[in-house]
Amino acid sequence: MKLIRLLAITLLVSLVPAMSARAADHLRSWNDGPAKQAIIEFVKATTDKGSPKFVRPEDRIATFDNDGTLWAEQPMYFQMLFALDRVKALAPEHPEWKDQEPFASLLKDDVKGALAGGERAMLEIVMATHAGMTTEEFTQTVKDWIATAKHPKTGRLYTEMVYQPMLELLAYLRANGFKTFIVSGGGIEFMRPWAEKVYGIPPEQVVGSSIKTKFEMRDGKPVLVRLPEMNFIDDGPGKPAGINSHIGRRPIAAFGNSDGDLEMLQWTAAGNGKRFCLYVHHTDAEREWAYDRQTPIGKLDKGLDEATAKGWTVVDMKNDWKRIFAWVK
Amino acid sequence: MKLIRLLAITLLVSLVPAMSARAADHLRSWNDGPAKQAIIEFVKATTDKGSPKFVRPEDRIATFDNDGTLWAEQPMYFQMLFALDRVKALAPEHPEWKDQEPFASLLKDDVKGALAGGERAMLEIVMATHAGMTTEEFTQTVKDWIATAKHPKTGRLYTEMVYQPMLELLAYLRANGFKTFIVSGGGIEFMRPWAEKVYGIPPEQVVGSSIKTKFEMRDGKPVLVRLPEMNFIDDGPGKPAGINSHIGRRPIAAFGNSDGDLEMLQWTAAGNGKRFCLYVHHTDAEREWAYDRQTPIGKLDKGLDEATAKGWTVVDMKNDWKRIFAWVK
Repeated sequence: MKLIRLLAITLLVSLVPAMSARAADHLRSWNDGPAKQAIIEFVKATTDKGSPKFVRPEDRIATFDNDGTLWAEQPMYFQMLFALDRVKALAPEHPEWKDQEPFASLLKDDVKGALAGGERAMLEIVMATHAGMTTEEFTQTVKDWIATAKHPKTGRLYTEMVYQPMLELLAYLRANGFKTFIVSGGGIEFMRPWAEKVYGIPPEQVVGSSIKTKFEMRDGKPVLVRLPEMNFIDDGPGKPAGINSHIGRRPIAAFGNSDGDLEMLQWTAAGNGKRFCLYVHHTDAEREWAYDRQTPIGKLDKGLDEATAKGWTVVDMKNDWKRIFAWVK
Repeated sequence: MKLIRLLAITLLVSLVPAMSARAADHLRSWNDGPAKQAIIEFVKATTDKGSPKFVRPEDRIATFDNDGTLWAEQPMYFQMLFALDRVKALAPEHPEWKDQEPFASLLKDDVKGALAGGERAMLEIVMATHAGMTTEEFTQTVKDWIATAKHPKTGRLYTEMVYQPMLELLAYLRANGFKTFIVSGGGIEFMRPWAEKVYGIPPEQVVGSSIKTKFEMRDGKPVLVRLPEMNFIDDGPGKPAGINSHIGRRPIAAFGNSDGDLEMLQWTAAGNGKRFCLYVHHTDAEREWAYDRQTPIGKLDKGLDEATAKGWTVVDMKNDWKRIFAWVK
């Protein structure tokens, strides 16, 4: 009996990759074109046993930005919309906010006025809404919000604002033995409560920006309290540092959409052996949004130049994606 | 053909756990006794499909301290011995060290004198030997050292100073669908270069103390430079914070040997459902070392009291372990 089981395992180990590698089964929302071809060619080159560029499964690390790469980021980062909703929800406990910027403007629905205070205003909003509670309380708040809040333009749940072609790409890579990670400027604890369900990416494979936490005993029960102090900003040059800290291996493939992803792509490209760097270029004003060099959110300028110079893959959303969101035909 | 493959998978998914769960195949260096029994009982309770305490595989997170739990830590932390070796290797480039503490004492082999400067001296030694190079250079230095340096008492490689019963425990847990992590006060980049080979734990499952890194372009090539500045101390109350940051789930089992692991065990124990906390108690002066409440390295005092009070498992190395190191019969 033992021998039969061993044989079954051996048989399976050889069958599984052959079954799952087929791109046609996965990349259904991608039009045939250079981007899709480049993805397939990369996966074949790194996973075919006979390929000179073969990469052993444990080194098949793929990192994905989140905002603008896996889900939309307009009219502003969804985490900022979460923070604005939280300001309103918490306002009754903070009567002083009525006369205190940036909260006073926010409570009058004047987002522009609130953000006129720049980075400092943004940080104050984040800290007021993301700190002061335990990690478990914060997770629950995120879960409640993500289950009900609606996108201001489409009226859809934020978890429906994810890009169907990218979900297929994640699944295709995983079916080929890749380990997929999120490496985002967004909050690590903001993404983890829903990333597994939405992207199939477990909490331990989510890297993001973070605030400090403090261990405390409350009524004999240990808690981690979220402090109003930044710990790490996982953006720009922070992304290779975040990758190094959390993953400890250099990715062989990286996916982004803005200049904030450039250092991650550079870091990925600079490793030995076959590498793959991809930029999602927002070119579809009708089905999504069109923006690149001039936008305050998701600016892609230097990155676009470097992608061209280095021959990285640039996805033209309008032409490369058959379908953008699962709920649109 | 497709159907046959699917059937083979289904068959296998049901066979694999049955094959691998058997403790007798794994825990060979453990004497029959309460510690071994408690481990087996916990694994059965959390992995048997019919058990009321069943835990789904993705939540089977087990965290292990390293120094004194997976490998020895006497006469001092091995990473400190690495740092001392590095001071000697780097001394020719630092003529000023001859007259500068703590280096002057170290170069005269007066470790006690060097460490008389306390935490500050220790930090200076660490920064002088662990910072100022790229992450790749540091990794190579660790690899070279770990491949050749010998333990001062046993004359064995440091990677031979790992506890055979704990290697078996790691393998037993993994065979039962657990994901095993290191959560150590030691340096994350000091452990990663060899943890996969020695413990079967990949870099992305190693959590440890860290210094800050900085992204830089050098001759058009991106590098991460290690800065002489602490980033995170993964010890004591830092362990739950490190677990939260890197894993993002609460472990259901945690293994340590000192008071520095107490908060990790408390954090683990405080979750819902079946939990397992274990302390390795160094009780074997002949085969290893015997120490607990009075030692400067690996002090186990409060933790021992709390383990007793809470009914956690305490491994008595002398009586519970048939064999400590693989190279001793």
